[in-house]
Amino acid sequence: MRSATFFLDGAFRRGPAFSKLVLIFAASGGGLVAYADARTDPATEPSQAAPKKKVVVLGTGWAGTTFVRNVDSSLYDVQVISPRNYFAFTPLLPSVTCGTVEPRSIVEPIRKIIRKKGGEIKFWEAECFKIDPDNKKVHCRTNIGTNLEGNGEFLVDYDYLVIAVGARVNTFNTSGVVQHCHFLKEVEDAQRIRKSVIDSFERAILPDLDEEERKRTLHFVIVGGGPTGVEFAAELHDFISEDLAKLYPTVCNLVKISVIEHGGHILTMFDKRIGKFAEEKFRRDGIELRTGYRVVKVSDNIITMEDKLHVESSVSYGMAVWSAGVGARPIILDFMKQIGQGNRRALATDEWLRVRECDGVYAIGDCATMSQRKVMEDILEIFKFADKDNSGTLTVKEINDALEDICIRYPQVAAQQGNYLASCFNRMKHCEKKPEGPLRIRELGRHRFRPFRYKHLGQFAPLGGEQTAAQLPGDWISIGHSSQWLWYSVYASKQVSWRTRALVISDWTRRFIHGRDSSCI
Amino acid sequence: MRSATFFLDGAFRRGPAFSKLVLIFAASGGGLVAYADARTDPATEPSQAAPKKKVVVLGTGWAGTTFVRNVDSSLYDVQVISPRNYFAFTPLLPSVTCGTVEPRSIVEPIRKIIRKKGGEIKFWEAECFKIDPDNKKVHCRTNIGTNLEGNGEFLVDYDYLVIAVGARVNTFNTSGVVQHCHFLKEVEDAQRIRKSVIDSFERAILPDLDEEERKRTLHFVIVGGGPTGVEFAAELHDFISEDLAKLYPTVCNLVKISVIEHGGHILTMFDKRIGKFAEEKFRRDGIELRTGYRVVKVSDNIITMEDKLHVESSVSYGMAVWSAGVGARPIILDFMKQIGQGNRRALATDEWLRVRECDGVYAIGDCATMSQRKVMEDILEIFKFADKDNSGTLTVKEINDALEDICIRYPQVAAQQGNYLASCFNRMKHCEKKPEGPLRIRELGRHRFRPFRYKHLGQFAPLGGEQTAAQLPGDWISIGHSSQWLWYSVYASKQVSWRTRALVISDWTRRFIHGRDSSCI
Repeated sequence: MRSATFFLDGAFRRGPAFSKLVLIFAASGGGLVAYADARTDPATEPSQAAPKKKVVVLGTGWAGTTFVRNVDSSLYDVQVISPRNYFAFTPLLPSVTCGTVEPRSIVEPIRKIIRKKGGEIKFWEAECFKIDPDNKKVHCRTNIGTNLEGNGEFLVDYDYLVIAVGARVNTFNTSGVVQHCHFLKEVEDAQRIRKSVIDSFERAILPDLDEEERKRTLHFVIVGGGPTGVEFAAELHDFISEDLAKLYPTVCNLVKISVIEHGGHILTMFDKRIGKFAEEKFRRDGIELRTGYRVVKVSDNIITMEDKLHVESSVSYGMAVWSAGVGARPIILDFMKQIGQGNRRALATDEWLRVRECDGVYAIGDCATMSQRKVMEDILEIFKFADKDNSGTLTVKEINDALEDICIRYPQVAAQQGNYLASCFNRMKHCEKKPEGPLRIRELGRHRFRPFRYKHLGQFAPLGGEQTAAQLPGDWISIGHSSQWLWYSVYASKQVSWRTRALVISDWTRRFIHGRDSSCI
Repeated sequence: MRSATFFLDGAFRRGPAFSKLVLIFAASGGGLVAYADARTDPATEPSQAAPKKKVVVLGTGWAGTTFVRNVDSSLYDVQVISPRNYFAFTPLLPSVTCGTVEPRSIVEPIRKIIRKKGGEIKFWEAECFKIDPDNKKVHCRTNIGTNLEGNGEFLVDYDYLVIAVGARVNTFNTSGVVQHCHFLKEVEDAQRIRKSVIDSFERAILPDLDEEERKRTLHFVIVGGGPTGVEFAAELHDFISEDLAKLYPTVCNLVKISVIEHGGHILTMFDKRIGKFAEEKFRRDGIELRTGYRVVKVSDNIITMEDKLHVESSVSYGMAVWSAGVGARPIILDFMKQIGQGNRRALATDEWLRVRECDGVYAIGDCATMSQRKVMEDILEIFKFADKDNSGTLTVKEINDALEDICIRYPQVAAQQGNYLASCFNRMKHCEKKPEGPLRIRELGRHRFRPFRYKHLGQFAPLGGEQTAAQLPGDWISIGHSSQWLWYSVYASKQVSWRTRALVISDWTRRFIHGRDSSCI
């Protein structure tokens, strides 16, 4: 490894002829077409060369993008594969659903991020559908355009694989959810929800409808009382009361927003004071909370649910958003079966984010959340052990749920993992010589790196009406208008580029001046 | 009419009880649900009341929206029916295709326009699919949502009907166009084109493609050398050379843009100097012009065309935009058959924009362009008559084509017609007493109104690279960077609201600072 890296340092500093030779070598090794315009510097000395190790990153979410931004691309041949050619600032998705922020303001093309680094990272807009760890290859498929010859499939070799494909929505196999509910996971979901809200109003105001039908059309149901569902409910309430009420005055009194939550309270992953405040605010706003209900079936206009005693009830609705949980993507389920983790809900990694029993494969972000939680479970075990009378059992469960939802909601874990892993890759040569990690148990010496540790940096729950609840480290709770401004500041500062930062701030400003737009575009 | 209008002036000034009575009456008359929150002013004197005449407007394009903005809604019960709940500033559509301007910046919700007027205009988001002039009713259908009971159809009565549904794209029944080409008529079209351009680059850069396939994928073909096609070609060229070339450096040298035009030159509706300038600029930019070719067939990756001698040739392509002509919408074709105009290409109106043989029905904008052109043909006839040696015949044809394309491109005719018709409706009472129009030929007295006359106010042809050709009244031609700034000023000033004006200007500013966005969103 060390010698390879050494030679690589000079690999692209030779004359054009030699550079082409290297490229052809890389092409045959990597199954990739070589580019003739690789940067060359004829002035430097010739030296022996070896190809850089190939790092393949799957996914351009929080974990993958943070890794790509921080990895030193002069040390590795980095290739990124994702069906989305952009990074999306997902915490602002609920704002996109109601036009408070524009979709384009929260996305940054991955090629721009790469270009800013000045590196040689390649990006392929394609979906990886199979991982072959024995041959160190990933199978990819593009679905761009309809004019393709062949099946659009190709193979990519790797030396190191960083799996960061995220999670998908979990419907818990509830009948009718896929057919009739909106999700809120991708930018396109938020755009569809926005159009659907406007359409509901245009539909409800039409002549020749009876009152019942108007009411049904304007019944918005959110399944799941976690931060995403609660923030969407709050945004929707503000959108309707601040903007749509003026444009649809004859039907706005028929609107109803309901939140259905399986647990006894909403926002259970937060401090109880925040959940209580949110519930009270929602009641004042007229948002109906149905806690303790589990949705068992969704038809085109009826949602059926049951309470803790399995007594069924149902409500008619016009539009539903499912925000009740996440699960592993099919490619991860497949891969887990291949490597003997078939009984898990997500990829198991060790504390260095390496997939167990799988040389050179790392998993970060939501696709490995559960395994990461295992580290936290260990800590929790210590607490449990200390809690002799077992009075803390429920709390442990709550903390567990909370941690899971935090990982999904504000992707701090994903971003911290991407950052950690990039720093490991960047210092691999150094740490081979001078290991920094803890002592090895079964072998001699130390681990190369310190294990990954998650540092909780606080979390927000926007509640509408320019009020936000903030829970910061050290049990510091803040609720109200001041937190809203803290929220604006933090989310603006967290933007991935100055461009998106300017866009998001100008979207907020526009909304203050002109209100939100209500065109069904 | 006069007495009805007189009584109407006081109709909503009575106490609440009387107001309800009027509303029930209006509801039974109009087949519409009455609203309980109509504004009432209990302080004024009771007076006799009659329902206002019902004006139904079909369409929210340039013609319909200009009519709605200008009609006095205190004199009429105005209802607007359109499948789009917004007005779109269509001249900026080519800018939307490449992200120079955002879709949302060029649309204004029709309900906001109505609300600004402070009137009582109603809007239904639905498509009129049948006009029944005998019973003075229109049949409408909504297609919002999937949860509808029944077929979503309803009837609306009218006293006056203003048809402003615009035109649809004309494929001239060319095989494969609907399946494989993009159009550029609606905001959604522009959004699709934008995504498709980015997808072409993501596709072309993928590994495992041969050079031919990359070239094919990056061959962008525009069919039609009118202002829309030319502006799109220019925008696309700028987008690629200014933004995409940096992000896709390895494939940008494979890009080809072709414009296929049936006539001998592009921009034939402009002064010849502008066409010549545009052709020279396009050649310098590397945009291929195939003039004198007619497209006869489009398959998924081949466009087949023939020249004037009917010799066929074909090119492979990756993405095609069809911008070769417009035709009448199905509802207009149906209606023309009903009223004995089946052999026409658009609704025939007289000089007062009244549909012939059809009491109380008016047609404005593109759906009546041809008939409106008839008025111009009359003027041209006079010129022809004066032109003894017939040397001007070709010029007349050219002017004809030019006028048709102008109507479609920059919808000045539509807007002027909407404005004219609203002013006629507003002064109907006054002009009944004091007719302003020319002497009637078959009857006594004068026509109520002066006939509609189109006033040409100039036209722009943006050519890319911050250069625009402007043709202004009085044969004043301006080409270059200064015209680009004139173009910015005029288009900014023409915006329908301060909100969209601010948005469009800030989009332009953003583009100057940050470039265009290349996410496939």
